[in-house]
Amino acid sequence: MIMEPGKAALKGLLAGSDQVIVISNPTVFALHGRAFMQKCIPAGVACQSIIMGDGERYKSRSTIERLYEQFLDLRLSRKDTVIAFGGGVVGDTAGFTAATFKRGMRLIQAPTTLLAMVDSSIGGKVGINHVEGKNLIGAFHQPQAVLINKKWLATLGHRELIEGLGEILKVGFISSQKYLKKISELEKKETLLNSRTLFEIALEAMRFKAKVVAQDTHDNDLRMILNFGHTFGHAIEKVEGFKKFRHGEAVLAGMAGALYLSHTCNKLPKSELDKGIGILSHFRQFLRPLKGRAKDYVLPMAVDKKNSGGNNVFVLLDKIGKPAIKVVNANKKILDATSYMIDFVNG
Amino acid sequence: MIMEPGKAALKGLLAGSDQVIVISNPTVFALHGRAFMQKCIPAGVACQSIIMGDGERYKSRSTIERLYEQFLDLRLSRKDTVIAFGGGVVGDTAGFTAATFKRGMRLIQAPTTLLAMVDSSIGGKVGINHVEGKNLIGAFHQPQAVLINKKWLATLGHRELIEGLGEILKVGFISSQKYLKKISELEKKETLLNSRTLFEIALEAMRFKAKVVAQDTHDNDLRMILNFGHTFGHAIEKVEGFKKFRHGEAVLAGMAGALYLSHTCNKLPKSELDKGIGILSHFRQFLRPLKGRAKDYVLPMAVDKKNSGGNNVFVLLDKIGKPAIKVVNANKKILDATSYMIDFVNG
Repeated sequence: MIMEPGKAALKGLLAGSDQVIVISNPTVFALHGRAFMQKCIPAGVACQSIIMGDGERYKSRSTIERLYEQFLDLRLSRKDTVIAFGGGVVGDTAGFTAATFKRGMRLIQAPTTLLAMVDSSIGGKVGINHVEGKNLIGAFHQPQAVLINKKWLATLGHRELIEGLGEILKVGFISSQKYLKKISELEKKETLLNSRTLFEIALEAMRFKAKVVAQDTHDNDLRMILNFGHTFGHAIEKVEGFKKFRHGEAVLAGMAGALYLSHTCNKLPKSELDKGIGILSHFRQFLRPLKGRAKDYVLPMAVDKKNSGGNNVFVLLDKIGKPAIKVVNANKKILDATSYMIDFVNG
Repeated sequence: MIMEPGKAALKGLLAGSDQVIVISNPTVFALHGRAFMQKCIPAGVACQSIIMGDGERYKSRSTIERLYEQFLDLRLSRKDTVIAFGGGVVGDTAGFTAATFKRGMRLIQAPTTLLAMVDSSIGGKVGINHVEGKNLIGAFHQPQAVLINKKWLATLGHRELIEGLGEILKVGFISSQKYLKKISELEKKETLLNSRTLFEIALEAMRFKAKVVAQDTHDNDLRMILNFGHTFGHAIEKVEGFKKFRHGEAVLAGMAGALYLSHTCNKLPKSELDKGIGILSHFRQFLRPLKGRAKDYVLPMAVDKKNSGGNNVFVLLDKIGKPAIKVVNANKKILDATSYMIDFVNG
């Protein structure tokens, strides 16, 4: 259920909860927290906020331990509601805490970044990082609703918009030529910063993801298509560090590798590879250079959770708008695709 | 799916898993581990065992952290299967690790204690303890199957049988006079140690719990009846320590309080209170004395997860075989019931 927040909507969602806990980070809460709590939390509902650290490193065991302590101090019950008010780090961490506190509290996702809107807030995946990889500890915990608001996008920095665009472009590649074309027109800075156009394009990506997830809630098969560009992307995050390459940026770069592999190990025609790379290249200017060698990125792919039984599983394209899950054991071709991706990013 | 283990049964259950991890404790594994792995794991399935500590204190964050590390070393995927081979501590801890590793692996419960058979192995509740209380961190993760074996009961000590009996008696109180009578005949030591009679009585309790759980998988209402005696029982475990009072023993004692409260705050007739206490008293000899004062036990009840919004929620009986969920805010009556329970246990 994707909806714009308001007291009437929230009143229905919060029926049965005695307490509501808004979990946020200092930046988001300073900008939008007070307005959200004043305008959206109905009278008569006890509402408290808990501020967690801002950044990927807070998506950690120690954050959830602290949240558990505070939940216990507040004597929260399973019927109370957690609202994750922030980007993906807040959504995943607050979501996982809600999923595992007293075996599962109610959860509402309120994504304030473009990336969290189109990606992590939809589909119920929650979790924290492990020193050996992202999201290795987690659960499925569907939110009661996902709240969205144009105003939250208006305060995002340019880099945060770009990383959201990475996931939006991904939806373009796996869904349709037409939608991909619409996104590629965002390349002009003025369009990108026009939050109304962006909001509508983002909403379309959210609806696409919600439709895929509804058919495969536990990520058994169909939902894997949403990982287009992610095997390469996760490897970039691991090698370059989560700070230098944000998730959406890594996916943006990773799609160059995935497109190339779609051509060399699957049936994506050369013409569509060129077209796809052409669209990605509009956004290449926003990426930092890759410092690793090809083989450095190949190594962490083995730990990636999409690898089953030692096989390298990739989401590749048959054509634009038609993704397919493929096992690729030709290590040379994976290495070549990685080299291609490095050359693409580094120009 | 409750079943006796064998290669044919396991072959079906393990289809699709490349690896099987048997998690156990040193005691159980030394007695039954080799036989289980040799006789029940089909050829061609890679099977490894991981031994965790024996006892409630290992149902902890540090155990799951170690299990995560080992799962990562073994490169387990979500399609691989964890078999929890041991008592409740193994089942809950291995189960929670399986529930949260890569967002949920397949799980088979193989309870080797009477208590785990009739209680924790059924219903998908998994979790670990927090310093502020038992099972505060957890999830719902239904096992693919629950494996049971008469031979595993044969090596249990007398105290382990008694604590299983606590939960079996609980099922008697909430299900039927007839079944309760059958259980009460186990009081003779020779009957109790005859594992065939016990196995069949236990199987009946498992089936009753499975039926209740199927109607309320996420513990929203109906399933609460399974907590008869547990609010008092958890308080006993907290005050006396988990070692001195094992879970089933605490429930056995706690039911004296719950029966008394069923009479003073609900409609359980005096005659049925006396009858119930009469049955419990057959087993009182196996309990250690309670050292706390009544008010010591009342305190931890507030943190108990069954308390919603500050209300004290109890499972009480209308009559034997007919449980009801009641809010009891008469603190004096709760205190009286606690005193009654202390007097009952201490004789």
